[in-house]
Amino acid sequence: VDIVLGANKYGKAEIRLLRVDRDAPAHHITDLNVSTTLVGDLAATHLTGDNSGVLPTDTQKNTVYAFARDGVGEIEDFGLRLARYFVDSQPTIHRARVRIEQYRWDRADGPHSFVRGAGTRTATVTYDGDAAWVVSGISDLTVLNTTGSEFHGFVRDAYTTLAETKDRVLATAVTARWRHGSASPGERGWAASHADAVRHLLAAFAGTHSLSLQQTLYAMGQRVLQHCPELVEVRLSLPNRHHFLVDLSPFGRDNPGEVFFPADRPYGLIEGTVLRAGAADAEPAW
Amino acid sequence: VDIVLGANKYGKAEIRLLRVDRDAPAHHITDLNVSTTLVGDLAATHLTGDNSGVLPTDTQKNTVYAFARDGVGEIEDFGLRLARYFVDSQPTIHRARVRIEQYRWDRADGPHSFVRGAGTRTATVTYDGDAAWVVSGISDLTVLNTTGSEFHGFVRDAYTTLAETKDRVLATAVTARWRHGSASPGERGWAASHADAVRHLLAAFAGTHSLSLQQTLYAMGQRVLQHCPELVEVRLSLPNRHHFLVDLSPFGRDNPGEVFFPADRPYGLIEGTVLRAGAADAEPAW
Amino acid sequence: VDIVLGANKYGKAEIRLLRVDRDAPAHHITDLNVSTTLVGDLAATHLTGDNSGVLPTDTQKNTVYAFARDGVGEIEDFGLRLARYFVDSQPTIHRARVRIEQYRWDRADGPHSFVRGAGTRTATVTYDGDAAWVVSGISDLTVLNTTGSEFHGFVRDAYTTLAETKDRVLATAVTARWRHGSASPGERGWAASHADAVRHLLAAFAGTHSLSLQQTLYAMGQRVLQHCPELVEVRLSLPNRHHFLVDLSPFGRDNPGEVFFPADRPYGLIEGTVLRAGAADAEPAW
Amino acid sequence: VDIVLGANKYGKAEIRLLRVDRDAPAHHITDLNVSTTLVGDLAATHLTGDNSGVLPTDTQKNTVYAFARDGVGEIEDFGLRLARYFVDSQPTIHRARVRIEQYRWDRADGPHSFVRGAGTRTATVTYDGDAAWVVSGISDLTVLNTTGSEFHGFVRDAYTTLAETKDRVLATAVTARWRHGSASPGERGWAASHADAVRHLLAAFAGTHSLSLQQTLYAMGQRVLQHCPELVEVRLSLPNRHHFLVDLSPFGRDNPGEVFFPADRPYGLIEGTVLRAGAADAEPAW
Repeated sequence: VDIVLGANKYGKAEIRLLRVDRDAPAHHITDLNVSTTLVGDLAATHLTGDNSGVLPTDTQKNTVYAFARDGVGEIEDFGLRLARYFVDSQPTIHRARVRIEQYRWDRADGPHSFVRGAGTRTATVTYDGDAAWVVSGISDLTVLNTTGSEFHGFVRDAYTTLAETKDRVLATAVTARWRHGSASPGERGWAASHADAVRHLLAAFAGTHSLSLQQTLYAMGQRVLQHCPELVEVRLSLPNRHHFLVDLSPFGRDNPGEVFFPADRPYGLIEGTVLRAGAADAEPAW
Repeated sequence: VDIVLGANKYGKAEIRLLRVDRDAPAHHITDLNVSTTLVGDLAATHLTGDNSGVLPTDTQKNTVYAFARDGVGEIEDFGLRLARYFVDSQPTIHRARVRIEQYRWDRADGPHSFVRGAGTRTATVTYDGDAAWVVSGISDLTVLNTTGSEFHGFVRDAYTTLAETKDRVLATAVTARWRHGSASPGERGWAASHADAVRHLLAAFAGTHSLSLQQTLYAMGQRVLQHCPELVEVRLSLPNRHHFLVDLSPFGRDNPGEVFFPADRPYGLIEGTVLRAGAADAEPAW
Repeated sequence: VDIVLGANKYGKAEIRLLRVDRDAPAHHITDLNVSTTLVGDLAATHLTGDNSGVLPTDTQKNTVYAFARDGVGEIEDFGLRLARYFVDSQPTIHRARVRIEQYRWDRADGPHSFVRGAGTRTATVTYDGDAAWVVSGISDLTVLNTTGSEFHGFVRDAYTTLAETKDRVLATAVTARWRHGSASPGERGWAASHADAVRHLLAAFAGTHSLSLQQTLYAMGQRVLQHCPELVEVRLSLPNRHHFLVDLSPFGRDNPGEVFFPADRPYGLIEGTVLRAGAADAEPAW
Repeated sequence: VDIVLGANKYGKAEIRLLRVDRDAPAHHITDLNVSTTLVGDLAATHLTGDNSGVLPTDTQKNTVYAFARDGVGEIEDFGLRLARYFVDSQPTIHRARVRIEQYRWDRADGPHSFVRGAGTRTATVTYDGDAAWVVSGISDLTVLNTTGSEFHGFVRDAYTTLAETKDRVLATAVTARWRHGSASPGERGWAASHADAVRHLLAAFAGTHSLSLQQTLYAMGQRVLQHCPELVEVRLSLPNRHHFLVDLSPFGRDNPGEVFFPADRPYGLIEGTVLRAGAADAEPAW
């Protein structure tokens, strides 16, 4: 045959789960969106429809709910438990990836009430039967600086009309993921590590006098690695949420950096990785 | 002719605007989404394409930006200024409605940096050349109680399978709008009034032992009116974000209110108005 | 008491339903999104949590599925059946509204295969125990003319910068709803009536030399009423999907109406009603 | 230093573009969403904010519009033109990727009117200064079979509750991308090649008696490669849009495969590649 099956994977996407811990008088909630992906000896189901090696995606969903009965804890741990279970219990499954989004809830008045906050904590755990990789992160962290951002000295070609600027609004919706050097939590544990990483991302965004969004990106990754020794790599995706100064001169008005039009599309998209030299290999690509 | 033009209106929707106030060392930002709608003598453009009475939607957009140059302030005031301008300056325009969403930003590290928060403040201002109506509100305020919610004693007919419950998770994404008795701010001003209303909505959601989401809705509206004398009416739209207890018995596990599936669709939708008896008439419908 | 309950309603939103008809060798599918809303003697559940008058939204959902077992047919009929059932069977319910979206599927190769098409057929049925109102419609019908659209002669004030144009791209995503004069289908039946209305909307959009989007709106409504005697009112909501000519002069190029930037926000929003003079009253507002 | 810059890239995302061809009496439109991504010697801007090697994303946008002035043609060609320009004209840029979505418009009444259809044609072109890779595709092609789909014989473990089935509804929203063996169009040209690939995807979906969605996936890829000799690889992502049979037995009704609940989340996600044995290497990963 000259036509063959290449890379393939399958799983259950977006398993929504709320875990309520009622042990203490003040309840605690964990609100997750879990996606599982499995890789293994799956040629038969593709070629002949023989499903004898297929753990149904419905079962993967059930497993997530059943495991949550024993507590979720930190999402990195929950992901590790699930990924290891799928590979270790299923002879046909050789690799598993579990991706978790955790939605933020803040406590409201009283011990049983909560308000949804902004920002999403993420974890992606990969396990191949031997090694495990843990990548923590955040998404939808939208930030803005009203000053301290310049952009000039760039290439000018026949299609360049952009004016140089010494002061602009810089805004982005941060998606960041940081890889741990080990699949075991450091002394501080996953939660404190995550809080620190987010704190340093924010501090670097706010504290960097920026000559380009790329420079801000690098400063954000660098600062996280400098302060979080348990991390070896930071991957950042930063859409440039352009804020255009509105021309008010037709109405006889100046506009000294006060009135802006936040545009939807198109947007710049700056993506990059900052890593510790000599870091161990990243998880296998999917 | 037996075919005629009925009610009609037009405007510019979703004018995005960021206002930066740089007067103080710590900058201040106002991030808005403004929609304008005008009603008036507009038959000609419909019937013959004669646009001599049409203020272009592009001009409405320009007006929003130009007015922002003089400062935005509270969105209720900004809406009033715009609505009055359109009606008072244009002979053909008899009514204007300005609807504003204000996105929440919290201060981050340093005087020029901000992080986007959850929840959106809203204001809808209507002006007819004589009277003005101000309706403030909030959207996307998502809240959840882990206990203190029952639902039983309801009608059972041939299609009823729902079990009665003495303890369920209650969650909703609040959209609330509250009408002011006057188009002038009370002594506290618009901002403090808004903060109070939101605080009382949350307190009533968290503090009401609920026998139905309708009861919670009424309690929320009632509490706002009891504590905010400047308000005369509260309108609430509460989707019931169902959280279904997962059946873990096939896996030999109980589930004492701990593991839930938050469903997307369908969802209950409870909507109602609570108002002060004898309140003045609401704004004209659009 | 000076605080009272005002208008209120409740129901189940977005009940997704696929009906497969297998009677003929070529299967037939009906893919719906149904939302039910009930109004009645519901003060008790708001004021005290007494649910003895509340038909649960879960039961409303069950009713939709159970009724579908006997066939769906045209969505206007399905909505009428449901609305009448809720009011006629429940002493506490005085009005019901059923809103249905039907997604378009085209037949693919073979008798059992389908491809999702663009455009959504809608119906909103209202019943008050006596009279019934049927409003059919369409949403997400996106259309564009490359010429035959002008816009000039409009009001110019201090904030007007828009240039007059004799030739522009005109694009909109039509949401249209048309009310039937009777709750009984005419001789042609609901399906043929719907197809005709859509055909005339499209023909009027394409065939009208437009001096304003308002003129196009009126022409669309007028044409539907002229050709569909069973209809008495057409309501249109037309966002003006602006296509801005890109200025290529910085690159030494002209742009004779060839390269456009389709903008997202803001957008003009033109809404209006065209009706038959002396038409019977519309359904009660919700 | 022990912290270093890793892989990085940047570009302009979602450049919306409408091209109108007015040469013939019947106009022709091309409606695109273009995203550009560049890779090269970009360390300086990250490390020091030196932008002397940075072609601004604003310029990339301008280039897309300027190139469209000379006609767009098939999106594969337009992508090749752009990707080659960026790399060949900019010493600091070593690789470019241009990703294009083309929205479907069907001709409406008359020579200048169009209606938006369902389904999106895609092309991703990669160029490294030497070789070029062209990957064509489609997204949002939603298809459904009412019969001819079974699922049984799968692994059963402690968390498996799924019943085996000999007849189910199978539905998916196809995202498919197929790589050309050469960056030159074959004799048929890009458009005919694309139409054929889509036709064969649909025919395989409709014509395969399916024992698993994986089997359908493989059949779809295999059939495209069998009939399109210019293609060497097909990548498919198939969400399993579950349709659950509604249990009507509480209402005393059977449900012989007629009434279904189409669920939103979670969903199975089946992804795989089918390729010609010995095919040349795929484009570099991004």
